[in-house]
Amino acid sequence: MVAEPHDAIEIIVTKRDGGELSDSQIDWVIDAYTRGVVADEQKSALAMAILLNGMNRREIQRWTAAMIASGERLDFGKLSKPTADKHSTGGVGDKITLPLAPLVAACGVAVPQLSGRGLGHTGGTLDKLEAIPGWRADVTTDEMLRQLEDVGAVICAAGAGLAPADKKLYALRDVTGTVEAIPLIASSIMSKKIAEGTGALVLDVKVGTGAFMKKLDDARALAQIMVDLGTDVGVATSALLTEMSTPLGLTAGNALEVREAVDVLQGGGPSDIVELTLALAREMLGAVGRDDVDPADRLADGSAFDVWKAMIRAQGGDPDAPLPTARETHVVTADRSGVLTRLDAMAVGLAAWRLGAGRARQGDPVQAGAGVEMHAKPGDEVRAGQRLMTLHTDESFRFVRALESLRDGYDVTAGSAPYDPPPVVIERIAGH
Amino acid sequence: MVAEPHDAIEIIVTKRDGGELSDSQIDWVIDAYTRGVVADEQKSALAMAILLNGMNRREIQRWTAAMIASGERLDFGKLSKPTADKHSTGGVGDKITLPLAPLVAACGVAVPQLSGRGLGHTGGTLDKLEAIPGWRADVTTDEMLRQLEDVGAVICAAGAGLAPADKKLYALRDVTGTVEAIPLIASSIMSKKIAEGTGALVLDVKVGTGAFMKKLDDARALAQIMVDLGTDVGVATSALLTEMSTPLGLTAGNALEVREAVDVLQGGGPSDIVELTLALAREMLGAVGRDDVDPADRLADGSAFDVWKAMIRAQGGDPDAPLPTARETHVVTADRSGVLTRLDAMAVGLAAWRLGAGRARQGDPVQAGAGVEMHAKPGDEVRAGQRLMTLHTDESFRFVRALESLRDGYDVTAGSAPYDPPPVVIERIAGH
Repeated sequence: MVAEPHDAIEIIVTKRDGGELSDSQIDWVIDAYTRGVVADEQKSALAMAILLNGMNRREIQRWTAAMIASGERLDFGKLSKPTADKHSTGGVGDKITLPLAPLVAACGVAVPQLSGRGLGHTGGTLDKLEAIPGWRADVTTDEMLRQLEDVGAVICAAGAGLAPADKKLYALRDVTGTVEAIPLIASSIMSKKIAEGTGALVLDVKVGTGAFMKKLDDARALAQIMVDLGTDVGVATSALLTEMSTPLGLTAGNALEVREAVDVLQGGGPSDIVELTLALAREMLGAVGRDDVDPADRLADGSAFDVWKAMIRAQGGDPDAPLPTARETHVVTADRSGVLTRLDAMAVGLAAWRLGAGRARQGDPVQAGAGVEMHAKPGDEVRAGQRLMTLHTDESFRFVRALESLRDGYDVTAGSAPYDPPPVVIERIAGH
Repeated sequence: MVAEPHDAIEIIVTKRDGGELSDSQIDWVIDAYTRGVVADEQKSALAMAILLNGMNRREIQRWTAAMIASGERLDFGKLSKPTADKHSTGGVGDKITLPLAPLVAACGVAVPQLSGRGLGHTGGTLDKLEAIPGWRADVTTDEMLRQLEDVGAVICAAGAGLAPADKKLYALRDVTGTVEAIPLIASSIMSKKIAEGTGALVLDVKVGTGAFMKKLDDARALAQIMVDLGTDVGVATSALLTEMSTPLGLTAGNALEVREAVDVLQGGGPSDIVELTLALAREMLGAVGRDDVDPADRLADGSAFDVWKAMIRAQGGDPDAPLPTARETHVVTADRSGVLTRLDAMAVGLAAWRLGAGRARQGDPVQAGAGVEMHAKPGDEVRAGQRLMTLHTDESFRFVRALESLRDGYDVTAGSAPYDPPPVVIERIAGH
């Protein structure tokens, strides 16, 4: 038995007292936690100390590198085209991955999109695609490589081998009130994305009531740390800070969002979804030197939609099959005439979750048809009695609590109140 | 199954974000932790948040009350005399309980002294007494009450039934770098002392390199919190802040300290031990309204020593039996002539521990004869080659690491350097 070079208490006390962790301390504490030598109760005390006392850039870099080193790495180097990936910090109605991946693939760039399932009020990309009959999230590494070469895009579940230290730590943070530590969020996201082996990465960092980051400053700090982490290891990384006080598009829910994504791929869809999809596509193309291609053309000529159908079929799905619908609906109407001046993303996200679109615990089932369909967005004029939202669920008892979430979630201001719409893309953060 | 009124994450996040915990949150989190509903990794994250963000007086009071409520309480109300207890925050050479308990008992006050074993560089009272052939630390509650009535003093192990929440939390703090939280130290000590049922309590809060509290301000804050906690529940409580940058007396080790305590009870012993023993005895007597008795008389007339012998015999020990001695000794001499201007308590404590007097893990055995015997104290003139310390151990390999601890642990200043001895008792903190 080799003696351990550090011990957990020494490392916890260093960070607790506001000190810097050395490279050797960080390497050891991540590895020892993965091996079970550092116990959960020690790691959670350390996570709380990091949350309250922070880590500097070197510490975050090393922490990320140690999490990558805990598992395997994918290699897309043998593909005939460059690869680009997108990561969103999560929001309500955020179905952007669905049109974006086939769109960028239609522009000649491979998009390996390892995605997750939803937890709490934000939806999960895999849950949305699983609303499509036959579609399966699990593919082998070989299947992924073949699909990237042949179709150009794959959206699938991340294997257990990527950054296992992050998986263990994420589950711990989830139950110990330590999710909100910016250094830990940044290293969690980036360790998975770097281990995944993409050549370029665009981060969609959401800001607002329905986002993880409620304040612009926090979102900017998180974005800059992640962009630096990627850039430092040679991944062309940039970030867009984007608006998430209002839901994206007009739907929040699994099948409802797939339908909206298909609308966009067919040349229609809500303008905010189209704008954000194109902005992120241009970032991804720019990152791999393909600024010459205009993704708007690939939406217009149907080639992005063709890739979508091929991508769904490659994973067993039927892109032409009817999508599931919920058994029960309930309509929310405006109780006065005026302008819809606020529609809160968190309220809508919670309502969709309570209607059955999301899960409370990992492993719970979700309802494919459940969710919230919006008939007006902020800035729209509405008349008293006009439909504002339709709630969808398979179980009508769920309407009560969903309506509670929505009660203070929107404002209709009488008269012709001026409404100044916030920009979809607030700011761009580039690598150094 | 009754639904839980709170959840761990809500409570962790409240404290993490600098908020105040409600009475109901505190009651629940202590009870739920004792029941195993709150997990170790949640409690340690909360402990770290408390360490870094603090608790106010109401929160500490409630926390202490909840820990008392987790177990049983003793009741000394049926004794024919008042009870007074002393608690020390722990130091090097701190054998004061040994002469103090019989001395105060000889003054007509019952002293129920529930004590612990040593961990790390500070010794444990029970370890010291176990150096006496035949003496046993475990007595039943009935035996304790009988001994208090007949002999007047009992020093014994605390039963598992007192404040079990504290026992569980203390073990957790020990491995998660959260021992040093003042609110948790205060509530840990006071929950046990209040549950123990004493009528009066004197706290000996050590300050200095060999103490838990290195700074006077921290010691004062801890003392004030504990005094308030006791006073608020009707226990007459006061505290003395006492010097712990130099070891107390001339010995650190189990049998070595028993011998020194017996010297004091026989009217001799080092002056700092005699001074502190009398100061604490006067506090305890004053707290129960027995200021009329001068404890110095009871030392001088041998009645305190008589109680000592009766107390040792009542727990199976032979007060006349020779004490164990270590098999090996090593003498440290002065390498120049001058004045011993510093003898560091932590250095001596670590040396005694490494010689075998203390333990690294709970449950390890200790050597009865091991420790450090000092032949000079700060302020004493020494000549080159004169003995400064004798190290005692059963295993000679232990000398090397003990000498390492001592290397920078003392200064002999050439010439006749002036030395201003610090006071033994620095300050008194009274209840409101």
